[in-house]
Amino acid sequence: MRRQAIRILGIDPGLRRTGWGVIEMSGTSLSFVGAGTVTSTDKLSLAERLVELHAGLCGVLDAQAPHEAAVEHTFVNQNPTSTLKLGQARGIALLVPASRGLTVAEYAPNLVKKTVVGAGHGDKKQIRMMVSVLLPKAKVDSDDAADALAIAITHAHHRASRVLAAAE
Amino acid sequence: MRRQAIRILGIDPGLRRTGWGVIEMSGTSLSFVGAGTVTSTDKLSLAERLVELHAGLCGVLDAQAPHEAAVEHTFVNQNPTSTLKLGQARGIALLVPASRGLTVAEYAPNLVKKTVVGAGHGDKKQIRMMVSVLLPKAKVDSDDAADALAIAITHAHHRASRVLAAAE
Repeated sequence: MRRQAIRILGIDPGLRRTGWGVIEMSGTSLSFVGAGTVTSTDKLSLAERLVELHAGLCGVLDAQAPHEAAVEHTFVNQNPTSTLKLGQARGIALLVPASRGLTVAEYAPNLVKKTVVGAGHGDKKQIRMMVSVLLPKAKVDSDDAADALAIAITHAHHRASRVLAAAE
Repeated sequence: MRRQAIRILGIDPGLRRTGWGVIEMSGTSLSFVGAGTVTSTDKLSLAERLVELHAGLCGVLDAQAPHEAAVEHTFVNQNPTSTLKLGQARGIALLVPASRGLTVAEYAPNLVKKTVVGAGHGDKKQIRMMVSVLLPKAKVDSDDAADALAIAITHAHHRASRVLAAAE
């Protein structure tokens, strides 16, 4: 038995700003549900900032009730300190949906760009533009929220093959 | 008003194995309370492994009821993929005690070694030996648990100056 409409949450993790975007997939048609940015307070300790991200994402899950989640597979940065910071924020982004029993898919940034822009080297501006073409009603407050919607769109396009692969 | 005895939780984070150790500080005397290792299942997805670490650490907090926590300030690894993995586990290690309102101190590995072994370049064997000298009743099931106790001892030694600095 198939659910009529699937709600997909995309997350673009970051310690300072974590973007999120929710879309609904009904057959092959996609529609915008919500998007936004969870921020953490610079002045707080790292542990307190992670608590802020955790609380913010829990609020998103409560309000949006997605069925599945997708997170960008982080490119390891040349700067190890940035990689560590991002890793810590990403840990929270993976934990929150998985804690509620959602499957959390991971997609490489190149695949997200290819799916949404049609090429593996699209920049943030192109992604934002294509998100507004694919989801005309989308209201997006930041590049991070646009990226999160792009990740959700990527999951919508690739989840069918994942589900088939899992059933084999 | 000062609490008579302070319970300190030390955490040595890792995706595969996260060590934890709890000591009690009464005046200047330290005693062993508990130590162990929270592990995650290799075969599961990253998100599910983080859920395991989160649940394990929540169980430790429930059982041990520490007042303060300390986590090793991670050395950024030469291998960015390892750094990212460690970052994700470390995010959970910081989140769990901070979610319950505990302050979470961070100490550099060199300071932990200096405090426990007396030199900044002690190896795992020396740390384990000195932990058993400083906490004769300690039962330790892994190097990670010994490291976690060493981090808790470091916090016990340095928290007084932190408290004074915060009061100034």
